[in-house]
Amino acid sequence: MSVYTPVSQPELAAWLRNYSVGALEALEPVEAGIENTNYFVTTAQGRYVLTLFERLPAAELPFYLNLMAHLARHGIPCPAPVADLNDAYLGELNGKPAVLVTRLPGRSLEHPGEAECRELGMLLARMHLAARSYGAYLENPRGPRWWRMAARDLEPFVDAGERRLLEAELAFQARQRFPDLPRGPVHADLFRDNALFEGPRLSGVFDFYFAGVDCLLYDAAVCANDWCLAEPQRDRRLDAARVQAFLGAYAALRPFSAEERDAWPAMLRAAALRFWLSRLHDLHLPRPGELVHAHDPAHFRDILERRSAEAPPWLAAP
Amino acid sequence: MSVYTPVSQPELAAWLRNYSVGALEALEPVEAGIENTNYFVTTAQGRYVLTLFERLPAAELPFYLNLMAHLARHGIPCPAPVADLNDAYLGELNGKPAVLVTRLPGRSLEHPGEAECRELGMLLARMHLAARSYGAYLENPRGPRWWRMAARDLEPFVDAGERRLLEAELAFQARQRFPDLPRGPVHADLFRDNALFEGPRLSGVFDFYFAGVDCLLYDAAVCANDWCLAEPQRDRRLDAARVQAFLGAYAALRPFSAEERDAWPAMLRAAALRFWLSRLHDLHLPRPGELVHAHDPAHFRDILERRSAEAPPWLAAP
Repeated sequence: MSVYTPVSQPELAAWLRNYSVGALEALEPVEAGIENTNYFVTTAQGRYVLTLFERLPAAELPFYLNLMAHLARHGIPCPAPVADLNDAYLGELNGKPAVLVTRLPGRSLEHPGEAECRELGMLLARMHLAARSYGAYLENPRGPRWWRMAARDLEPFVDAGERRLLEAELAFQARQRFPDLPRGPVHADLFRDNALFEGPRLSGVFDFYFAGVDCLLYDAAVCANDWCLAEPQRDRRLDAARVQAFLGAYAALRPFSAEERDAWPAMLRAAALRFWLSRLHDLHLPRPGELVHAHDPAHFRDILERRSAEAPPWLAAP
Repeated sequence: MSVYTPVSQPELAAWLRNYSVGALEALEPVEAGIENTNYFVTTAQGRYVLTLFERLPAAELPFYLNLMAHLARHGIPCPAPVADLNDAYLGELNGKPAVLVTRLPGRSLEHPGEAECRELGMLLARMHLAARSYGAYLENPRGPRWWRMAARDLEPFVDAGERRLLEAELAFQARQRFPDLPRGPVHADLFRDNALFEGPRLSGVFDFYFAGVDCLLYDAAVCANDWCLAEPQRDRRLDAARVQAFLGAYAALRPFSAEERDAWPAMLRAAALRFWLSRLHDLHLPRPGELVHAHDPAHFRDILERRSAEAPPWLAAP
């Protein structure tokens, strides 16, 4: 469970007097997430999520919050930060930087089908197009520089075979020409559990706290490695029909360039590498006081190996 | 009916490609309102209202749209303008300035009771508090200067008794010291038909196109003259219980000053005068091409006379 900083009802009621959201009615801790403390909050006005930032660098928070505000006012169904009476998104509660954001309806799906992958493709393209006019800049904090640093830190903890795979992959990725691809603010962590569906509609995407500027195609690769795995998932293959639904819906709004088509296999490997490394890091080098939901790193190691071994599906020729 | 500028489905679908709200699904003209052309718009993402501005001075539109955006991001349930891919709220469609705003749920009530007046009081106070940090300035376009101008234009159209009443009221209002009262951005037109309820909750306030900076108490007076009329309404009396519910809920969030208490009777008269004048104006001096829902001016003349004749209810001493 992930409530690092407790917040009582009277503490929150007092804090909310600096907002225009009406009186506090209910407060409920959220048991998911490992980076922040989250509460579901109900007021006379509506449903919100309260987030206390436990570890994110304070200097990066405005990038995330202003990006969410930017996307929300463009019609993207993402949490909208609520401004307080001083017109600030970021406040402080019980000694932590804190923000109140709108809570989206819907629930996460464990087994998205082609229709849901199509919804995801449309939303991802709309999000990338809307984010183009966002002015702030933050390099993807889990990009190539971080991969190399994490790989060095993890050397003592991986076996010889994994070390060889890591080194080979870092060398392969260093030869790719990703800077030629269209870039912009990306979510960079849009797994199934960061999306909500209400009936057939994608009703929300959330958890923008790994967002940064990177190749737009990287965002699609992160999604595909999670949303489009074929059954049985232990094979780590991509389901061609779901990849087609996802990429086709995306490309209808933002067509891919020839360079992006060529980069797709390497980008899927990059996306697998990033999550293999972060899961290894969470497992072997947990931060002090971290109450971990450690995910199994082997899942992404296996995805990386599979993506390296065979050509992944791409859009069928029209 | 109030569609001055027709918009076809293909025209709107093309226009919406500059937005991130998903594909157009439905378009339906709105038959209310006299200032603008409105359509209900449904897209793959959600429900919106499209407004084409027929007459409002273009220079004033940013004040209204940015005010709505400001209030929405503070948690006030008002239409939120949607930014386009150039990051602008205001676009142009079929030769008119145009904006897409979120559509709020709920329906208007004809007979609000004490509970609904309490909801209104809370929301109005929250709105006034949230608007304090709004930086732009526009004088209330239907304030004292406009009253005097309109009264002069209307002289040929009113009878001798009405002329005497108008002159006496303008003279009375000129002696009031309203500049001493707390001021800020006010809605200034928050009639029952500009508010929506979903069950017992006030789920939306809209039509901010008469907003401006004025005494906060003026906003309350406009509301009271419409929401708190006692039955039978032809008496134009205020229902003390609903006034108490409304002002009490407001004062719990923003207490009134002694100066505001003293100004209440004159402020109710000012609010009645403003709508008497505008209804006379709509009736006798309609703008060219106006397709009018002319409201009966006598309603507000009678309210003005009633407010002048007897002390209106105010908050009971606690």
